[in-house]
Amino acid sequence: MKFETNWRPDRSRGIPIYRQIADYVRSKIESGEWPTGSRIPTERAAAKVFGVNRSTVVQAFAELAADGLIEGKSGSGTIVSAASAWDKQVPKLPDWESYVKTGVHRPNQRTIQDINHAEFIPDIIRLGTGEPSPDLFPKAMNRIFRQQPSQTDIFGYPEPRGLYSLREEISKHMTGYGISVSPDSVLIVSGALQALQLIALGLLKNGSSVLTESPSYLQSLQVFQSAGMSMWGLPLDEEGLDAIALERYAASGKGTLLYTIPSFHNPTGKVMSLKRRQDVYQLCVKHKLPILEDDAYRDLWLDKPSPPPLKSLDQNGLVLYIGSMSKTLSPGLRIGWVIGPEQVIHRLADVKMQSDYGASTLSQWTVMQFLRQGLYEEHLDQVRKELRSRRAYMLQLLESYLKEAAEWEVPTGGFYIWLRFKRDISVPALFDAAIKDGVLLNPGYLYDKADRNHLRLSYSYASFEQMKTGIERLARSIP
Amino acid sequence: MKFETNWRPDRSRGIPIYRQIADYVRSKIESGEWPTGSRIPTERAAAKVFGVNRSTVVQAFAELAADGLIEGKSGSGTIVSAASAWDKQVPKLPDWESYVKTGVHRPNQRTIQDINHAEFIPDIIRLGTGEPSPDLFPKAMNRIFRQQPSQTDIFGYPEPRGLYSLREEISKHMTGYGISVSPDSVLIVSGALQALQLIALGLLKNGSSVLTESPSYLQSLQVFQSAGMSMWGLPLDEEGLDAIALERYAASGKGTLLYTIPSFHNPTGKVMSLKRRQDVYQLCVKHKLPILEDDAYRDLWLDKPSPPPLKSLDQNGLVLYIGSMSKTLSPGLRIGWVIGPEQVIHRLADVKMQSDYGASTLSQWTVMQFLRQGLYEEHLDQVRKELRSRRAYMLQLLESYLKEAAEWEVPTGGFYIWLRFKRDISVPALFDAAIKDGVLLNPGYLYDKADRNHLRLSYSYASFEQMKTGIERLARSIP
Repeated sequence: MKFETNWRPDRSRGIPIYRQIADYVRSKIESGEWPTGSRIPTERAAAKVFGVNRSTVVQAFAELAADGLIEGKSGSGTIVSAASAWDKQVPKLPDWESYVKTGVHRPNQRTIQDINHAEFIPDIIRLGTGEPSPDLFPKAMNRIFRQQPSQTDIFGYPEPRGLYSLREEISKHMTGYGISVSPDSVLIVSGALQALQLIALGLLKNGSSVLTESPSYLQSLQVFQSAGMSMWGLPLDEEGLDAIALERYAASGKGTLLYTIPSFHNPTGKVMSLKRRQDVYQLCVKHKLPILEDDAYRDLWLDKPSPPPLKSLDQNGLVLYIGSMSKTLSPGLRIGWVIGPEQVIHRLADVKMQSDYGASTLSQWTVMQFLRQGLYEEHLDQVRKELRSRRAYMLQLLESYLKEAAEWEVPTGGFYIWLRFKRDISVPALFDAAIKDGVLLNPGYLYDKADRNHLRLSYSYASFEQMKTGIERLARSIP
Repeated sequence: MKFETNWRPDRSRGIPIYRQIADYVRSKIESGEWPTGSRIPTERAAAKVFGVNRSTVVQAFAELAADGLIEGKSGSGTIVSAASAWDKQVPKLPDWESYVKTGVHRPNQRTIQDINHAEFIPDIIRLGTGEPSPDLFPKAMNRIFRQQPSQTDIFGYPEPRGLYSLREEISKHMTGYGISVSPDSVLIVSGALQALQLIALGLLKNGSSVLTESPSYLQSLQVFQSAGMSMWGLPLDEEGLDAIALERYAASGKGTLLYTIPSFHNPTGKVMSLKRRQDVYQLCVKHKLPILEDDAYRDLWLDKPSPPPLKSLDQNGLVLYIGSMSKTLSPGLRIGWVIGPEQVIHRLADVKMQSDYGASTLSQWTVMQFLRQGLYEEHLDQVRKELRSRRAYMLQLLESYLKEAAEWEVPTGGFYIWLRFKRDISVPALFDAAIKDGVLLNPGYLYDKADRNHLRLSYSYASFEQMKTGIERLARSIP
């Protein structure tokens, strides 16, 4: 476990720093936050987090050890002493460590956990983050809250499939994509990731195979693997997902689902051609292979709109379609949606009710208002304009600093540039070095375990100044 | 699958009703919402939902059959015809029915599914609903949104454990309960139910046993069973959970977790005495049995506060504590929290990040403001006042209408009255009869499969008028 806290010793108080640290640890132990037998932070980690000299921590820990609260244990560092327990009879309880290790759900990949934590290091430059910068968040919030929502709209438990008025707006919005669907077949979810979780728990069986692009965002998640499914990666070519590889695998009958991001693919930025969409759809029809189409980036075209979604070709109910407001409106609202045959939507709604009783009604109402009042379209115009200049600036930086070392294609939408190093370098070592240098990267191996020479760069999150500093530092770190 | 839609034929249009219905079905088929081979609603169900004569539906379906879009199939009703598919080659695809049946997650109990759906029948009287009535929702929303939140506060992805400012407020709020905990050991979740899901997926192993009161709210959920755990019910006496039964079971070493609702227990309304809390805690210490304390109703005391939480006795990190705003502030915000040893909180935060990337930041910010500005305490005063008159009215109705047939205890807080019928009656039949009569009940067997003669009544949701009509109708339906 990583040691993290917002607590810091207060130098303006009259109390010595080492004593403040000792009191802090004492309160952690007495409150049961650090139970008997659990490991406490190393002196080094504590000194770093608290921003003090290691000797100060040494002094604090010595006092705690003298009081019998902590003890060194060979092989496992310093632990909370059994003698600290109010009941001296109790040696070590409960063994949370074993609970933490035996859960059904797999832990996130180590690098993902590192990224989740590093994102909150102050001033870290996030060069790979798949989020809109706070500068891109909509300004219309106050206009919306001047509407005086009805209490029930924003505070009640929503229906299993989500707020009806939002499902109506989504259904209208989908018409613009060539998807004709009634609100009955729309399920509101707490972001696209939850859609994957519901599908994993609600539709697929243990031992299923999920096919997907290689690399793919999906490979950075544990959602299908934790539910006992395996993943099978299919190569990408100029036009998107390789249809021949798909046919070969689909014919074997082993795949239960094809997950694809045909528009502004994450992480490569590629767009599947219209022809390829038709081919992939026909192949899936032939082999009765359901498709899960993740279309979270569609609204973020920068040069021209992407070809119509696979779902728009679908009169057979073969395609489950996922949309999201996280990349366009804002991630903090946690609103996405799934479209599919009604019986599937009902099943997923039931699993959702069992997971969290539905998405925040306040968030649902807010998104509904954005759509209904036309504020969403207004906002997209702004976002596209801003993303175009960000993309231009990032490309210019790459030209200036990384032309020798790497190559890339110009994305026509979305957030990402899939950077390929021309020479063999150790990307894991680069990741570690960059963090020390205050730069957070998304290495290619997150999206394809076998990948050795890519980075996913994003121009959506860091400020212009941060992009410059970040790319300069990155260029400097390349061996 | 239940047939549900908000669509209705429009009598003011010049188009015959049967034709409107035929067009509706056609659009469902052409959009893939009702895929080839899937069953369409029965004529009876369609007539009921659309509010038309059955003969009108018969006429519409006859037209669709003549066009080859639907066909009768012996044994499985009317299905979408294969000939309807744009590609005549394709007989039936994909077999969503089999996907829907094979998911890892168990479906909700049938009665729970019926309840989830019946809740949205217009004018239904909900006599058992465990939610605050919309009348009880806070009025302070506009005051809060006048604060002009920073964009990042309400739109950004939150930290894995949740918005820091909210965790600070919760930590302060917990001090009032005798729980001393830093924001580091608080995890924000999307409602208490999600806490259970995270614990099931993140901490427990397949084949574990979860001990709990019998009856218990927990037994109405599938969350632990779907993750491969079994449940073991322990009896309740005057002082709460039976400590002797707990000791016997705990000594066998088979339990991995004790789930309990010591304050204003759901569904019985009982409060565990202080003495019993101490005994239960000591027993769990002795047997190293972790406790999951669900304290969602604590703030809703009506006569006097409940004894301190088990967590306040806990210096050993034995207790995981769950709190929630769903019963007090509003369910639609979907905000709850878990408190426990830091290593457990980190593990649960990681599983949460993999499930939905965190709770709505907009909801988190809103709850933080309620707490920070003291609006939450103000609101609680109002809610308690209102619940007291609701409880008094419900008790008066029971005295008038159900004294002969049933008995009950007066709850000292929370939402529920645990009604026991003195004679053997068929509660399942009563449930069905009541729905037909426009009254939705929560039968006791939801909370204990073996229960045959209880209802969970709630005075929190229905209006005074609805309570009266509902109890009158209920009294009339008792055989």
